[in-house]
Amino acid sequence: MSRSLLTAADRSTLAPNWNVQQWFNADDGLSLQQLRGRVVVLHAFQMLCPGCVSHGVPQAARIRETFSPERVAVVGLHSVFEHHAAMTPIALEAFLHEYRVTFPVGVDTPGTDTTTPVTMATYRFRGTPTLVLIDAVGRLRAHLFGRAEDLIVGAAVATLVSEADRGSAEISFHPADATGCTTGACSA
Amino acid sequence: MSRSLLTAADRSTLAPNWNVQQWFNADDGLSLQQLRGRVVVLHAFQMLCPGCVSHGVPQAARIRETFSPERVAVVGLHSVFEHHAAMTPIALEAFLHEYRVTFPVGVDTPGTDTTTPVTMATYRFRGTPTLVLIDAVGRLRAHLFGRAEDLIVGAAVATLVSEADRGSAEISFHPADATGCTTGACSA
Amino acid sequence: MSRSLLTAADRSTLAPNWNVQQWFNADDGLSLQQLRGRVVVLHAFQMLCPGCVSHGVPQAARIRETFSPERVAVVGLHSVFEHHAAMTPIALEAFLHEYRVTFPVGVDTPGTDTTTPVTMATYRFRGTPTLVLIDAVGRLRAHLFGRAEDLIVGAAVATLVSEADRGSAEISFHPADATGCTTGACSA
Amino acid sequence: MSRSLLTAADRSTLAPNWNVQQWFNADDGLSLQQLRGRVVVLHAFQMLCPGCVSHGVPQAARIRETFSPERVAVVGLHSVFEHHAAMTPIALEAFLHEYRVTFPVGVDTPGTDTTTPVTMATYRFRGTPTLVLIDAVGRLRAHLFGRAEDLIVGAAVATLVSEADRGSAEISFHPADATGCTTGACSA
Repeated sequence: MSRSLLTAADRSTLAPNWNVQQWFNADDGLSLQQLRGRVVVLHAFQMLCPGCVSHGVPQAARIRETFSPERVAVVGLHSVFEHHAAMTPIALEAFLHEYRVTFPVGVDTPGTDTTTPVTMATYRFRGTPTLVLIDAVGRLRAHLFGRAEDLIVGAAVATLVSEADRGSAEISFHPADATGCTTGACSA
Repeated sequence: MSRSLLTAADRSTLAPNWNVQQWFNADDGLSLQQLRGRVVVLHAFQMLCPGCVSHGVPQAARIRETFSPERVAVVGLHSVFEHHAAMTPIALEAFLHEYRVTFPVGVDTPGTDTTTPVTMATYRFRGTPTLVLIDAVGRLRAHLFGRAEDLIVGAAVATLVSEADRGSAEISFHPADATGCTTGACSA
Repeated sequence: MSRSLLTAADRSTLAPNWNVQQWFNADDGLSLQQLRGRVVVLHAFQMLCPGCVSHGVPQAARIRETFSPERVAVVGLHSVFEHHAAMTPIALEAFLHEYRVTFPVGVDTPGTDTTTPVTMATYRFRGTPTLVLIDAVGRLRAHLFGRAEDLIVGAAVATLVSEADRGSAEISFHPADATGCTTGACSA
Repeated sequence: MSRSLLTAADRSTLAPNWNVQQWFNADDGLSLQQLRGRVVVLHAFQMLCPGCVSHGVPQAARIRETFSPERVAVVGLHSVFEHHAAMTPIALEAFLHEYRVTFPVGVDTPGTDTTTPVTMATYRFRGTPTLVLIDAVGRLRAHLFGRAEDLIVGAAVATLVSEADRGSAEISFHPADATGCTTGACSA
């Protein structure tokens, strides 16, 4: 089941880069490229989304505590697609302080001519909370909308960690294919 | 126990009026005077206070659903004493929408030369969440800081409702004493 | 609401006595008569009923802690109507020990020619958990089947305590009417 | 972290067989041998242990639902070490029915001259709930006493499933070593 949760389909498609306007808990910013070699758990949320506050954000914090930072990177993404005037970066900063969020959180760059922010559009998030799992070679492997159970998420992350352990020989990764995948056009 | 929770001490002291800058879910505003005859549950919170979001606000909503609106009024008070730039009225409006808060909520008027808002200072709230119970003749009868248990809160509110049922004869209420109690100076 | 929860209908009908085979946490047993003057919270449960274990029993313990024992008596009743071979008194004793139940618990006397125990039949319990509230003069005032919310239960108990405080003058209690109410025949 | 949770130490030591007096949900019984090729989650519990009822048993049911039965076997073990007269097989049967437990559950064989049952002694369980993870080649890989978090358990089970996927070549399994491991003497 943890297995079927993980996309195997187009294994050569890299996850698109995120487009972040501003970072918290990561002074110099953070790119997917930098995290190559680690499994990446990307948690997209909105600070005023009840399901994110009660479930998604605490779950991301638990993932951060459960796995070694050297193997698994947890990255928050504040993808605001409603109440833009309320969920500003300054409001987010207060939220992160009050909820003791210590993992890196990027502010998804607002869209032009649309309420949907750029990374959300790129990844085709259906809403928040959304959990995206990216394997150690940068491929998007799972995309979960809504409340994902800890047991399932733990299993999925560990499966990707185990895959990474097997060594590069087994993993067919073609950087050439990836080149064509720009932030604006690559579908999840 | 529900009994000892309720202050009997200075039974002639009226609860001070609240000082509200702006109302949500109450077009014409709401004064303590208007609510005379009903038990008033005043719930002070901040939209980015974790204990308010997980416990206080849902509890206030349950109180609203449990007791008859003709006997018990539930009033929210957004008493912001930190992160003022984040918890603006426009952010609060989005919060109330997302969390389906339908009872009246007033924005505690910001203080001058202090981060503490006016009603918070008047009532001497220690922080948020705070639950204040005011009886049907307007006296402050309980002041609970932190997470109050449903069983205790239900008992306390019902005790005040029962008191109100006994009739005015038994309740010694002296408006003269109350006159001295201004918004800025009266202690809880 | 707490008000309408409480039966006012036939205010002269006394709650029937319980019929108990064996007591735990009450060496000399306990009769309704002895508890006259106190509000009685009768919690009927089965030790293998999931809703009793997760909700009813802990709630009864919270009621015990919330109200003064001089005003409110909490009494458990083990009303076994299924799995009789499993839920024996010796099994119940272990259950009460493991779940740290310290309030008095009576074993409802098994029925003859029926799986339903005697008190359960007398009170017409629909099942477990059931919460029965009996006022200070011995009248059955509320009968709640299933999971009752703490806010509502706290309000109902406190209302009965407040009633008791008003004094006997107001309460019309006719022991004559009660005499006709035998354990086997009196309906709730 | 999921990694360090799993014992790697003596990788050639097989988990000892369990010693079961009676099975529920498994007409013909179930041996560790039969489950070779699958990861085995052995959940030791007592039906009157509060932590088992609220946490362990529901977690075992979630594990059963999360992973494919072809890859992961969930087996309950009723290891009664106290209140023996209460937690009889007939009481357990009622418990399993009421709590909708559908995975196989074995009754740990009572000890002679000791309150500790045989499998519990063999595995050196510290108490209940205990979760034991056995890999696809039969080696004991994790031993968790108390409340284990879903995220961690999900990760550990998935890691063992991933290991099994790698193929036998990598796994050094020596049946000769295992032979010496009898039910009564082999330590966990």
